[in-house]
Amino acid sequence: MNTLPGIGRKTAIRLTLNLLRRDAKEVEAFAGSLLRLKQEVHYCRLCHTISDSEVCSICSSHSRDKHTVCVVADIQDVLAIENTGQYNGVYHVLGGVISPMDGIGPGDIEIGSLVERMKTEPVREVIFALPATMEGDTTGFYIHKRLQEVPPRDDGTTIKVSQIARGIAVGNEPEYTDEVTLGRAILNRQPL
Amino acid sequence: MNTLPGIGRKTAIRLTLNLLRRDAKEVEAFAGSLLRLKQEVHYCRLCHTISDSEVCSICSSHSRDKHTVCVVADIQDVLAIENTGQYNGVYHVLGGVISPMDGIGPGDIEIGSLVERMKTEPVREVIFALPATMEGDTTGFYIHKRLQEVPPRDDGTTIKVSQIARGIAVGNEPEYTDEVTLGRAILNRQPL
Repeated sequence: MNTLPGIGRKTAIRLTLNLLRRDAKEVEAFAGSLLRLKQEVHYCRLCHTISDSEVCSICSSHSRDKHTVCVVADIQDVLAIENTGQYNGVYHVLGGVISPMDGIGPGDIEIGSLVERMKTEPVREVIFALPATMEGDTTGFYIHKRLQEVPPRDDGTTIKVSQIARGIAVGNEPEYTDEVTLGRAILNRQPL
Repeated sequence: MNTLPGIGRKTAIRLTLNLLRRDAKEVEAFAGSLLRLKQEVHYCRLCHTISDSEVCSICSSHSRDKHTVCVVADIQDVLAIENTGQYNGVYHVLGGVISPMDGIGPGDIEIGSLVERMKTEPVREVIFALPATMEGDTTGFYIHKRLQEVPPRDDGTTIKVSQIARGIAVGNEPEYTDEVTLGRAILNRQPL
């Protein structure tokens, strides 16, 4: 148990002793859940988020806008964006970002499958909701370039590419905003 | 001394005892600095930031762009924006934001003088760098409305009004961004 993130030796012992004090039934149920976790949780064939079926509930929903694809690094980002209630399109989970320092190249994440989706699905806009880090920017830049491989639609339109806004957080004051963010927020000011 | 912000009774005593142990000369120099602080520091007649002369070094600089005015709540915001190195216009310090809860109305902060400046100076753009709070938004909205009093220039142009971008902070990941900020960042996404 002490190989789980954030759980060291002491916490692992405390958790184990707690489990030991419980009913056998409870522990069996927990073990069963862990087994089912690996057996029953799948990744969506289209967007690669977790799913209990071959295609996830977002990709198979009729009320979601299939013309808009939000590209994220991880499954947690899908959950965070769903929580905002501001997005009605579908997703594409890369499973990481390009990071030469960590040995992660474009071929190690789901970029090829994204480009394929763009060729076969009627997508009009791709929104990058990637980390606002050098790795996230590199990944966005690389995908942007790759998307130029996608031929224009029959009606002559090409795919619109955007990224989520960067700037000062809602509730924050300029004074307490880091200078890189504040500097970019000035450069990317929005007309009122 | 314990009426200073962040300094309670205990800290005040510790600071006082520290001063007592120092040379008389050092303490006299400190007292002198405090006196000069009130005598020599002025507020700029134009932008209301602190200044050692009637007009501050930013307002009187020939290399600053007088066509662009950045409206901020406090002097600290001027310092924060100067630190970014991304802004070459001038400022207007309101000295607070409209806050009915705290009894601060439009007449209590430097809005009237801003509108006057717009009438007499060749300003083309006003940028709000106000807190991303309800009070900051109210203040921006009110000023925006007041700026419509300003007659168009002789060349027919009106003043452009913008606000600094809001969104996810540089270095942050969508997953760890609060949902209000993330939601707005999606709505205000920027084309690449």
